[in-house]
Amino acid sequence: MNRSHFVAWTLSLALIFVGAIAQAADALPSWNDGAAKESIVEFVGRVTTVGGPDYVAPAERIATFDNDGTLWSEQPMYFQLVFALDRLSVLAAEHPEWKEKQPFKAALEGDMETVIAGGKHALLEILMASHTGMSSEEFAEIVQDWVTTAKHPKTGRLYTEMVYQPMLELLKYLRANGFKTYIVSGGGIEFMRPWAERVYGIPPEQVVGSSVKTSLEFQNGKPVLIRLPEINFIDDKAGKPVGINQHIGRRPIAAFGNSDGDLQMLQWVAAGSGKNLCVFVHHTDSEREWAYDRDSSIGRLDQGLDEAKERGWTIVDMSKDWKIIYPFDEG
Amino acid sequence: MNRSHFVAWTLSLALIFVGAIAQAADALPSWNDGAAKESIVEFVGRVTTVGGPDYVAPAERIATFDNDGTLWSEQPMYFQLVFALDRLSVLAAEHPEWKEKQPFKAALEGDMETVIAGGKHALLEILMASHTGMSSEEFAEIVQDWVTTAKHPKTGRLYTEMVYQPMLELLKYLRANGFKTYIVSGGGIEFMRPWAERVYGIPPEQVVGSSVKTSLEFQNGKPVLIRLPEINFIDDKAGKPVGINQHIGRRPIAAFGNSDGDLQMLQWVAAGSGKNLCVFVHHTDSEREWAYDRDSSIGRLDQGLDEAKERGWTIVDMSKDWKIIYPFDEG
Repeated sequence: MNRSHFVAWTLSLALIFVGAIAQAADALPSWNDGAAKESIVEFVGRVTTVGGPDYVAPAERIATFDNDGTLWSEQPMYFQLVFALDRLSVLAAEHPEWKEKQPFKAALEGDMETVIAGGKHALLEILMASHTGMSSEEFAEIVQDWVTTAKHPKTGRLYTEMVYQPMLELLKYLRANGFKTYIVSGGGIEFMRPWAERVYGIPPEQVVGSSVKTSLEFQNGKPVLIRLPEINFIDDKAGKPVGINQHIGRRPIAAFGNSDGDLQMLQWVAAGSGKNLCVFVHHTDSEREWAYDRDSSIGRLDQGLDEAKERGWTIVDMSKDWKIIYPFDEG
Repeated sequence: MNRSHFVAWTLSLALIFVGAIAQAADALPSWNDGAAKESIVEFVGRVTTVGGPDYVAPAERIATFDNDGTLWSEQPMYFQLVFALDRLSVLAAEHPEWKEKQPFKAALEGDMETVIAGGKHALLEILMASHTGMSSEEFAEIVQDWVTTAKHPKTGRLYTEMVYQPMLELLKYLRANGFKTYIVSGGGIEFMRPWAERVYGIPPEQVVGSSVKTSLEFQNGKPVLIRLPEINFIDDKAGKPVGINQHIGRRPIAAFGNSDGDLQMLQWVAAGSGKNLCVFVHHTDSEREWAYDRDSSIGRLDQGLDEAKERGWTIVDMSKDWKIIYPFDEG
């Protein structure tokens, strides 16, 4: 390559990136300029540049997102746990024995300390009592009712309004660049599907999550899937790569999480052969959202934070990188 | 509606169907005219006619296909079983004990009667010995090697050449009409994914099948998914609606099978609220393929055949409805 060719080549490469960044400035209006936004935009520019060294065909542009704490808030407790407790209250009339039986007694009295003291077994009992015994269709309706009526104790907003505006923009930006966006969450697959398409633009077949077993039964000759009180799959930690492989069958090239529960998903993505993007959302905003990491029982980010720093992964500082948190913060 | 309006309305409706059928005549060249082809084309015309009473939005146009006996042949035994036996022969050198141990001894000697006499347990042992213990990536390579080299005993063709030309045309025709096409097979999900995109145009994320459990392990610091000798899910019979719900999260509007193992999938589709299409491929061609139904141990179609007739489902008569069977029959 002679000198003038080299200059032309460098210039056109620079123009590609400047162009990509300029385009993204429109696509990501709630993101402040900074290292996090830059790393995202640069990555998207590289993998979509036809003929470039990092080009990835559209079919392989898979991006996976954790849900709790990554796409919507998760404090003061996982929203699905609030749903479970609300559901217990509805069902309590049919279960007078719960008044004297733990962990139901504590759950109905709002005594979360006692519930949590019961450990995993207590939570599982609450989960099964509130999430199973009905058909998948009935459960979807119950969830739909809840997400359109229940209000968050701090903001007074619907839980589905407490989604992160910058992440909604990011989902759209990635899809506009040929990515297929997936949820890969420890939350229930059938808890998220009824509203994920409306709220995130993510269709049911692109939602991966934890599940209970279901059984095909016939009611008046009509086949229905009944949700059984038995865990089928836990889509958390080492389960996330398993769930990704089971549902998608390709390795994502980008992954977004916020806790140690997402670490293995990011490690899985980082182990791919081409260019990849691993991002942790760091909850640093005690004013507009919540601030927590290493010591939190919900959404603990400890080992993941160390590894992200060591490996140069992108860390989104919510207080600095995001102009607004929720869509309702706008205007 | 006055008379001239009624005539205009009838004419335009007729033109829509004539148009759709004419278009399909090009799209399905290996299908003879007849009730089967007509039912498919009429269904597609109805659900894609914007403003029509049976219109279905593209996102809901899900079509599911069984694989063995529906998209490719399954005689004289399931092709994946041939793969398992071939794999045992490769592994036999590392397992001298198999020479004296059933079912391996019989399998290595090609004594399928003894293998089958061992029942499900024997088949499971062969399956686990041949399909597990390696990473998902290694398994994909093993499968890839096999499908590009192993030859069918009757035709001398690669197994992936023994796919049904009329069904390849149908897959394309449905996709051209906005359908998302899925495999929902009792076969192994990781056995089908390595070649389903190349052969059927169906990407890995649209393949649903049976699976073994996998475990995330670290080899030299690199995460790998190891295939464990433990069944995770059997995607057959009542398992098919379960698998569909787990992976797709929507009810398909069209389903294609060939055996009683597909009956619950068709029942699941038929129980949907809108227009739907349920199709059995009936193996009636002893000359060009195989003829079998009620008494076959492989691909038995008995209860399904009765129910299809009772409910007016589409039955494809391979000998009458298909001009050619395999792509290599052409020209």
